[in-house]
Amino acid sequence: MQGKGLLGQLIQNLCCLPGVGSKSAQRMAFHLLQGDKQGARHLADTIRRAIDEIGHCQQCRTLTEQDLCEICAHTARDPSTLCVVESPADVWVVDQAVVFKGLYYVLHGRLSPLDGIGPDEIGMEQLEQRLAQGLIKEIILATNSTVEGEATAHFIAEVAKKYDIQASRIAHGVPMGGELEFTDSGTLSHAFDGRRRMM
Amino acid sequence: MQGKGLLGQLIQNLCCLPGVGSKSAQRMAFHLLQGDKQGARHLADTIRRAIDEIGHCQQCRTLTEQDLCEICAHTARDPSTLCVVESPADVWVVDQAVVFKGLYYVLHGRLSPLDGIGPDEIGMEQLEQRLAQGLIKEIILATNSTVEGEATAHFIAEVAKKYDIQASRIAHGVPMGGELEFTDSGTLSHAFDGRRRMM
Repeated sequence: MQGKGLLGQLIQNLCCLPGVGSKSAQRMAFHLLQGDKQGARHLADTIRRAIDEIGHCQQCRTLTEQDLCEICAHTARDPSTLCVVESPADVWVVDQAVVFKGLYYVLHGRLSPLDGIGPDEIGMEQLEQRLAQGLIKEIILATNSTVEGEATAHFIAEVAKKYDIQASRIAHGVPMGGELEFTDSGTLSHAFDGRRRMM
Repeated sequence: MQGKGLLGQLIQNLCCLPGVGSKSAQRMAFHLLQGDKQGARHLADTIRRAIDEIGHCQQCRTLTEQDLCEICAHTARDPSTLCVVESPADVWVVDQAVVFKGLYYVLHGRLSPLDGIGPDEIGMEQLEQRLAQGLIKEIILATNSTVEGEATAHFIAEVAKKYDIQASRIAHGVPMGGELEFTDSGTLSHAFDGRRRMM
């Protein structure tokens, strides 16, 4: 009976958001229509504008509506360190959490030969051009710690070596606040391998 | 550093949705921009259209883009039973869960004299006109089981009495699958008061 009208359509479309099931979508729809019409109008406009205007930064390939993203355009950032990540979401997360003042490069993926994703698909040519410029002293490989992420990090480290650039990998270990008892063995063995002297 | 651009705006606007914090808003924004552009465009359009076009049903006051909502316009529904609820969301929930084939009336609130919400604010005049037409035989009061919801139900039951219409209140008791141990005392005493013979 219900679900055919515009309200049903709205609920269905809200379900396409990650982590939103039909119950939350219902709540959202009623909130948009009854509570906060101005906010809803704003949201619709921003989604539209974001889709139309946001593209990739020419230098680091993250999401931005400018030619150069805010980070690349920022004059106070240190151009001698480059952090390589898999996705624009990673740039966002790292830049909010870490006191990292260098620049980024977004691969938009990871090497995965079985899926036909090789160096060309993750923008290695552009990255290599950047390494060749001689500005970069250290490259921090912050790809995910999956098999493919590790392989990608190793591949890029090899390329960096050609240009005499120091490559480092972010540390893997027990997360802050984590208990050993509930840590998986892979993470634990990384934590032991990567142990640091205290005194 | 981040959060100034269009992406930051999108994340901020998504936070206005109920149940969405900054982390989920981030995930949603990246999903909309990278994963599902077509779906995102659709979502923006539907939100806009919904705000512009959806109003209240002339008969039951629920949300609809038509003059009469689908339920009121449906010829197979039974016009002799009327279910009174507080909000359009309640209509949606009841109509999905219950095998109720009557019609609805939405109060858009509940009596709350302290907040200045009296009979006029919950559309009692229109409801009384409908009761006066003589078509309705039973009125089911499905307002929330809060103090104000109960008071509203009692008030409407009194009005229904004037027109010789039977008023009933939805049952309160232990929810299905609920355990006595974890049921609050108010609900339990309702459950005992409302007990039904089994054989």
